[in-house]
Amino acid sequence: MVQTLPSRLRAWGFRARAVVFRDRQALRVVDLLPPDSERPVLGAAIDIGTTRIEMSVLDLETGAEIAGTGFDNPQALIGPDVLTRIHYSARPGGLRELSRLVTEAINQNLSLLCTAKGHAAEDIYIVSAAGNTAMTHLFLGMESFDLIREPYIPCTNIPDTLAARSLGLDIHENGLVYLFPNIGSYFGGDLMAGILFSDLDQKEEPCLMVDVGTNAEIVVGCREFLIACAGAAGPALEGGMSKMGMTAGPGVIDRVWVDPDTREIRFHAIEDQKPVGICGSGMIDLAAALFVSGRMDIRGRFSEAACGQSLIQRDGVNSFVLAEASLSGTGEPILLSQVDLNSLTSSKAAMYTILEVIVKNTAGLEFTDLKKFYVAGTFGSFINPVSAISIGMLPDIPLNAFEVLGNSSLGGAKLLLTNPDAFDRILKIRQSITYMELNVNQEFMNMFSGAKFYPHTDAARFPSVSIP
Amino acid sequence: MVQTLPSRLRAWGFRARAVVFRDRQALRVVDLLPPDSERPVLGAAIDIGTTRIEMSVLDLETGAEIAGTGFDNPQALIGPDVLTRIHYSARPGGLRELSRLVTEAINQNLSLLCTAKGHAAEDIYIVSAAGNTAMTHLFLGMESFDLIREPYIPCTNIPDTLAARSLGLDIHENGLVYLFPNIGSYFGGDLMAGILFSDLDQKEEPCLMVDVGTNAEIVVGCREFLIACAGAAGPALEGGMSKMGMTAGPGVIDRVWVDPDTREIRFHAIEDQKPVGICGSGMIDLAAALFVSGRMDIRGRFSEAACGQSLIQRDGVNSFVLAEASLSGTGEPILLSQVDLNSLTSSKAAMYTILEVIVKNTAGLEFTDLKKFYVAGTFGSFINPVSAISIGMLPDIPLNAFEVLGNSSLGGAKLLLTNPDAFDRILKIRQSITYMELNVNQEFMNMFSGAKFYPHTDAARFPSVSIP
Repeated sequence: MVQTLPSRLRAWGFRARAVVFRDRQALRVVDLLPPDSERPVLGAAIDIGTTRIEMSVLDLETGAEIAGTGFDNPQALIGPDVLTRIHYSARPGGLRELSRLVTEAINQNLSLLCTAKGHAAEDIYIVSAAGNTAMTHLFLGMESFDLIREPYIPCTNIPDTLAARSLGLDIHENGLVYLFPNIGSYFGGDLMAGILFSDLDQKEEPCLMVDVGTNAEIVVGCREFLIACAGAAGPALEGGMSKMGMTAGPGVIDRVWVDPDTREIRFHAIEDQKPVGICGSGMIDLAAALFVSGRMDIRGRFSEAACGQSLIQRDGVNSFVLAEASLSGTGEPILLSQVDLNSLTSSKAAMYTILEVIVKNTAGLEFTDLKKFYVAGTFGSFINPVSAISIGMLPDIPLNAFEVLGNSSLGGAKLLLTNPDAFDRILKIRQSITYMELNVNQEFMNMFSGAKFYPHTDAARFPSVSIP
Repeated sequence: MVQTLPSRLRAWGFRARAVVFRDRQALRVVDLLPPDSERPVLGAAIDIGTTRIEMSVLDLETGAEIAGTGFDNPQALIGPDVLTRIHYSARPGGLRELSRLVTEAINQNLSLLCTAKGHAAEDIYIVSAAGNTAMTHLFLGMESFDLIREPYIPCTNIPDTLAARSLGLDIHENGLVYLFPNIGSYFGGDLMAGILFSDLDQKEEPCLMVDVGTNAEIVVGCREFLIACAGAAGPALEGGMSKMGMTAGPGVIDRVWVDPDTREIRFHAIEDQKPVGICGSGMIDLAAALFVSGRMDIRGRFSEAACGQSLIQRDGVNSFVLAEASLSGTGEPILLSQVDLNSLTSSKAAMYTILEVIVKNTAGLEFTDLKKFYVAGTFGSFINPVSAISIGMLPDIPLNAFEVLGNSSLGGAKLLLTNPDAFDRILKIRQSITYMELNVNQEFMNMFSGAKFYPHTDAARFPSVSIP
């Protein structure tokens, strides 16, 4: 670019459009364009999720989103979960294959997105990507085996801004790739992007962000402090909230409520089709409906008296019939078994306990001190806070404190492209954040036991929940 | 390098040898080696001169010089001087060819040097190269045409530290190439390296460095200030000192003196062969000998009475016979004509005037304030200060103030490899130096006229010179 600068500058009358990337300490000129060039200067934001990859293409001059898409992470061909993929990555050629799968899918989709809008992928000068630590490692082709072995040390926490070429990304030849840094193996760039997106680091008063995914990932803080906690919290939490139900899709029950007149339990299935199962947010609604209608007791057990004919035995286990076989899309009744319910009870108790540990025991705050309670992640987007409070999964704070962020990882990645301060903010966040290892000790187990009740052994904590 | 860090660190017991390059603001890790690796870590220093390329290979751990060599700049195939090469560079493919010529010659010589010492060019991690602004441009393949067109603006003054790969240099795959920055078109990285080598920027008291080459390039200063001046000083200086004589070689007269007993003029020819011509330092000696023996007057004219039979007419011009045809290696007498002498008079006067302008008029010092007077460049190495003072080319200061630096450009390039502060010093020098455009105005011409006498119209300035 510099080699031919003299003749280009003279041909352009010493005027040029500069495509500039602000690095940690310096400005990096990525390209020089003629002053009257109408070529757009684009950037791509990518959320590299374990399950889904979501991306947006932005016009870097206006900040406008030009196009967006999402697709399944093709690494699912190797294995649906992080563990399988990391084990695979240790095989000869495995790491390269995992990396290539993502790179090629991104290339293909970026090209399609740009072409559809009359542009070219070569107009993209920067890719801003956020993923959890494992996804970041596998994308960059970094050895990942030690992420899952004690003491769980990443290959690197702050990847360099890289030449797109060196990663095989087919964008502009001088294009750069920025990866959000990690805090550690269990706190990745996706959460860093989420903090950026939620502005948690700039709040005057304490706020909280929770990403309800495979793990419970929580950040509480404001511009004075940031405390983070992530990772599975012992056997009770394994699988986490997101594994409780089906993935959303046609016929999946996503909302459940008690009919105010008949006191019957009603539901909504996606696209109004015959029900085929229940998704996570539907499960939370259902548990809330069962509890507030008295069909379930404070210990999370079905009440035979209140359930009546809706309670059947299936494989020797009490099961609540949400939809009879004749109304179901599968020909089988849609059931919630006591086993499912127990699992939900454990999960909701764990979520509440982790929130309690981080907010009360660690930050020394009350839940009511939280001005905002951000719920991030796809699964979180669908949770009805009223239901979540009713079952004691989320704390009983004013409903207007809850705010759904959606894909905050993608949101943060987009911010990096449009907000010139974002780069520095990310580094500041990384430096100031206190990462807390969740310690599943006796105190935790005592708190956890209390939270296994509905909504809690200490019902006074949930004044808005009318216990039947 | 990062991708495989986890397994390598573990295989090495978490011990490693890091090859680190300290950049402007950050440390760059160029390679990681096993802790017990016996592979040497080498660096190459290169002076890319217009005529000659000199290089040294150093062990970066000990700072010891392992090998060194010099060869003609292969761009001489295109043209001996900078102007011809720059014109050629504007032709299609010309710039690439000029760049490739130097790169290939460097590759070939580095490989030979390393192999001869049992190493490989891949063991070289960094190349530190210094050249004048044009040589730097042509080496890096930067458009050079504007260097010779008003207002003489370089493509860049501070080249980035580059990947050796991107320049086609066959050293270590992560190897870097550092080019000394320029001040402008007429003050290049070779002089920056020279300042570094002379420690001018760290002196307590004012010193001066002069590179007697095609142009008179002078820097005066200390750690408080640095003033530089370079470039041809009008028609009187065109060609400069270095064009006055032949290049050193067998039979070339390099030293001339007056026999203290016989008062005859004696000379030394290189390798004691029959004389074939006179080199620049020999010319200065000869003029001094002619003057102090009364064979030349204070206006620089041969004295017929004092020269006697040694003065002959050749093509209608008075010429002094230094060696008769019978003693000469060419079969022709070795002569110094009045035309040659006039040219030397102009050159010595210009040199003194430039020194006067920069030291007295600009820096406000007297010559006697200079604690050191460094003479750099190959030509300068051979000048006898006594002779140069006698003819009024160099000021009449104590002889022990004069110090010959040799190839200060290569010296500075080597320092960069061994001295961790050099990088910052270079930038500081660049920022603090005041570059003075030599203004050939009436005042300059008046001073120049005074300096055309031997040793000067104001003979009191040269108390050590006994005027016959």
